[in-house]
Amino acid sequence: MKEVIAIVRMNRMNQTKKALVEAGITSMTAKEVLGRGKGIVDFSLLKGAEKGFEEAITQLGDSSRLIPKRMISIVVPDGLVEKVVSTLIRVNRTGKSGDGRIFVLQAKDSIRIRTGERGEAVLDEV
Amino acid sequence: MKEVIAIVRMNRMNQTKKALVEAGITSMTAKEVLGRGKGIVDFSLLKGAEKGFEEAITQLGDSSRLIPKRMISIVVPDGLVEKVVSTLIRVNRTGKSGDGRIFVLQAKDSIRIRTGERGEAVLDEV
Amino acid sequence: MKEVIAIVRMNRMNQTKKALVEAGITSMTAKEVLGRGKGIVDFSLLKGAEKGFEEAITQLGDSSRLIPKRMISIVVPDGLVEKVVSTLIRVNRTGKSGDGRIFVLQAKDSIRIRTGERGEAVLDEV
Repeated sequence: MKEVIAIVRMNRMNQTKKALVEAGITSMTAKEVLGRGKGIVDFSLLKGAEKGFEEAITQLGDSSRLIPKRMISIVVPDGLVEKVVSTLIRVNRTGKSGDGRIFVLQAKDSIRIRTGERGEAVLDEV
Repeated sequence: MKEVIAIVRMNRMNQTKKALVEAGITSMTAKEVLGRGKGIVDFSLLKGAEKGFEEAITQLGDSSRLIPKRMISIVVPDGLVEKVVSTLIRVNRTGKSGDGRIFVLQAKDSIRIRTGERGEAVLDEV
Repeated sequence: MKEVIAIVRMNRMNQTKKALVEAGITSMTAKEVLGRGKGIVDFSLLKGAEKGFEEAITQLGDSSRLIPKRMISIVVPDGLVEKVVSTLIRVNRTGKSGDGRIFVLQAKDSIRIRTGERGEAVLDEV
């Protein structure tokens, strides 16, 4: 069982939800977050900053700004991870910096509060 | 050590916090999220959508709406997971669709920033 | 690969971001959360509450209030966990209750949506 966390552009949320439902993934949680990946940084500035040039650190100010993003969290059986990942990539890839990231975390259990059911029975089926 | 994540109805947050404190669980983090589980989907529509009927996909629009929820995250020693889960179920079960989910993730360490203490010493006691 | 989650004071976010970038950690996600740790609770009240004194439970009301915090999530190779933890502690420790917590979760994979690259190649380098 895994938690798949995707951080994607805000304007892709509707297509992403729709694509996930079409792929049979019906349970999900979404949050507003701020994020940044490697791509936003100007590495020549960063290198300067690492070497201790005060000027470069100041210029770095802008590049360290966090961008509003949407985070989607989906807990699925191991057998569905690749389907979720490929669906997320298909809908969110523009080829430009800022397309986002997907993280896969180790999940141990899942419980439906209404019934007390546990384990993969609670999740979307492979 | 585990992270227990519960996604519950907004109007159950106060009772949930109170019940957790009474159960000896004093450390927690809460977030506003949007969520949906299986129960909200009309599966006959979903089946149609999978077969590619445009009409069904359109109707699906409503069912894919995400509902405002509260997410509570609690990191506890393995020996406290069942107590946390049963407390969360007791306070949040109404028997109706939308009662929410609990996920248990594998945690590796916990650090108190003020003192630098690490591991289970930082967590609520079993 | 690990997800390092820090829950810190709101007014430390800018210094934290800057310190992380200076330490070579360029990818991160931030969220607004509500949180509380052990320190905020008056344990004499809690003890009374556990013993079932209604009065103590009422007084407990205030101590169970959640405080606005910032949560930062960073996914890094195992070899960077200690650097991230020590950077977070250095910037966020005031020695007073409320300095926050750091949690380390087990991560299994990381995918860059733009390129489809996976694994540690996507993360900040050790």
